[in-house]
Amino acid sequence: MDEPAPARVIPVILCGGAGTRLWPLSRLDRPKPFVSVDGGATLLQETARRVGDPAQFAPPLIVVSEDFGDIAAAQLNQAGIGGARFILEPAARGTAPAIATAALESGADDLLLVLPSDHVVKDGAAFRAAIETATAAAREGWLVTFGVRPERPETGYGYILAGEMVAPGALRVERFVEKPDAATAARYLADGHYLWNSGIFLFGAQPLLTALRDHAPYILPEAEAALAAGHREDGRIRPEASRFARSPSQSIDHAVMEKSGRVAVVPVDMGWSDVGSWEALHAVADLDADGNALAGDVVMIDSQGSLVRSEGPLVVGVGVRDMVIVATERSVLIVPRGESQRVKEAVEALVRRGLEPPAELTDGEKGP
Amino acid sequence: MDEPAPARVIPVILCGGAGTRLWPLSRLDRPKPFVSVDGGATLLQETARRVGDPAQFAPPLIVVSEDFGDIAAAQLNQAGIGGARFILEPAARGTAPAIATAALESGADDLLLVLPSDHVVKDGAAFRAAIETATAAAREGWLVTFGVRPERPETGYGYILAGEMVAPGALRVERFVEKPDAATAARYLADGHYLWNSGIFLFGAQPLLTALRDHAPYILPEAEAALAAGHREDGRIRPEASRFARSPSQSIDHAVMEKSGRVAVVPVDMGWSDVGSWEALHAVADLDADGNALAGDVVMIDSQGSLVRSEGPLVVGVGVRDMVIVATERSVLIVPRGESQRVKEAVEALVRRGLEPPAELTDGEKGP
Repeated sequence: MDEPAPARVIPVILCGGAGTRLWPLSRLDRPKPFVSVDGGATLLQETARRVGDPAQFAPPLIVVSEDFGDIAAAQLNQAGIGGARFILEPAARGTAPAIATAALESGADDLLLVLPSDHVVKDGAAFRAAIETATAAAREGWLVTFGVRPERPETGYGYILAGEMVAPGALRVERFVEKPDAATAARYLADGHYLWNSGIFLFGAQPLLTALRDHAPYILPEAEAALAAGHREDGRIRPEASRFARSPSQSIDHAVMEKSGRVAVVPVDMGWSDVGSWEALHAVADLDADGNALAGDVVMIDSQGSLVRSEGPLVVGVGVRDMVIVATERSVLIVPRGESQRVKEAVEALVRRGLEPPAELTDGEKGP
Repeated sequence: MDEPAPARVIPVILCGGAGTRLWPLSRLDRPKPFVSVDGGATLLQETARRVGDPAQFAPPLIVVSEDFGDIAAAQLNQAGIGGARFILEPAARGTAPAIATAALESGADDLLLVLPSDHVVKDGAAFRAAIETATAAAREGWLVTFGVRPERPETGYGYILAGEMVAPGALRVERFVEKPDAATAARYLADGHYLWNSGIFLFGAQPLLTALRDHAPYILPEAEAALAAGHREDGRIRPEASRFARSPSQSIDHAVMEKSGRVAVVPVDMGWSDVGSWEALHAVADLDADGNALAGDVVMIDSQGSLVRSEGPLVVGVGVRDMVIVATERSVLIVPRGESQRVKEAVEALVRRGLEPPAELTDGEKGP
């Protein structure tokens, strides 16, 4: 908070996430934010464009590993997003240190719209309307999350139990709940008060810093020290590596959201997916009459319910049912759609065999 | 029969067959004889080597489309097969004109061992022993076929009903029967007198020409005229195109074998397959403990009963059951193993879309 600025909504776009879940489209050396799932703009570019209206948003603040700072900058430039700043993380420490650093780099009265960079939101207008709703609550000091109304008994997401209304369109968060089993997920769906935890947040910089001091006092000192010892150049902020690395690894959910009494949720229907698996991508894709989501040089004959895409060879399927098939110039993945979360096993096997770069495999702690 | 030569067994290797059944390994511009199914020698090379012992066989006579004469010659040269001659067909007219031409180019007392160039024979020693048996019968004027003892109720092959012994190890052919339905195939298997028609023959040049004159008198005159008007150079025999094209298209089975009363069959167990589909290749492949036949850069996790091969990208499968997956640098095929004969549909679709060369699609008339 070096220089106070007029209050505004700053998109804080988190470019974490590894390359395992959407392998081989994403790879350890080409993480998910930097790939396109529909052959057009990348997930990062779509995220930035979604909050790119200068009438509603300030230029974005991108939090990204220093390894991928250049690719992030190049993609934003290509997408015509001007004025972006970058926090280049020297190590992965989860979302709490990342957001703390972003809050310290913002004005006390600024509102921070925290966005994962690798989600799909099909209805951008609904999303922006929800942000307007959340902005009013955030200005009253609420830490606001966005809760997606469930469309199916999904076991891959965390849920939020919503209570009474505390501001127009915003409900008190009674409880965050972990990923449920199938029976529990069905109960949540029927109940109507449970929402998917989107991992998208809106809060004032000052209320967030206060909550961090109250509930996770070990986070802020390291972030402040790393910024003080770091340096800035051309909108690139480089926290000092050894201090930054001393921060514990923690999600903002665990550090603050699950502990504060001032947490609200804005329910929204916006065609959202965290694209956490090929199955999740199929669920939000535009399907043809056979229930297939096809992209690239693909010819399917008498095939149903499959996601098939190529950015390399011609892919030809005959009699294929409910499969995921993804081809790049150098790799081809085949897995039954319902088992697509097992792609991680495959990438781990490839790393063991030296067929993928032996980089960090996990997504870090991203919260529930 | 320009110049009489000492009697000998001449392998007549037929390089017909299109690129549709084992697509994308084979292609319209790279037919099946010229590909390897195990990553080593090509099917043509394996066929020629199987009959390459100069103590038992004369150098081979290769019948091949003029389009593929150079590749056939190069592959034989690479395999160390010397002295081969080539009949370069200006058009595809089935096996009867091809074999008639080969017989006319041989000595009257020579024995012709007619071999499709695109079959797998895993037990070459058993095959050569059967040839010794057949040679004795052929010297007595029998037109000998090789009948493979069935291992399963296969509906993809024609069958031969064998009768009483007419020479040591050779049985009279009672009847050729077309590809059966599943119930009939099961009955044939249980019966014990039915053999798979391998499409491999051994007969004297003179008895074959006599049988052609007797049973298919329209074949020989065109073959003789095409040879008379054709030309020879360096072991390459080029029948004249317009005369050759005037021959009706017919298989040796229909022209002679199903009509002559002097047809015998030598039963043999030799690990044979016509590799007429990916499923057929899986049936003769060496399988791992999970029933998979894998070749090339392939990593399979928790996968069973599948044929997976790559000569291009890394192929990774998770939870794959009973599938055929074949990758080349430019194409990837995915089809359930039991539906792999439908690959033809895929190739036809590709030709319609201009994604494969619009060449002749069918295998020609190859007999039952």
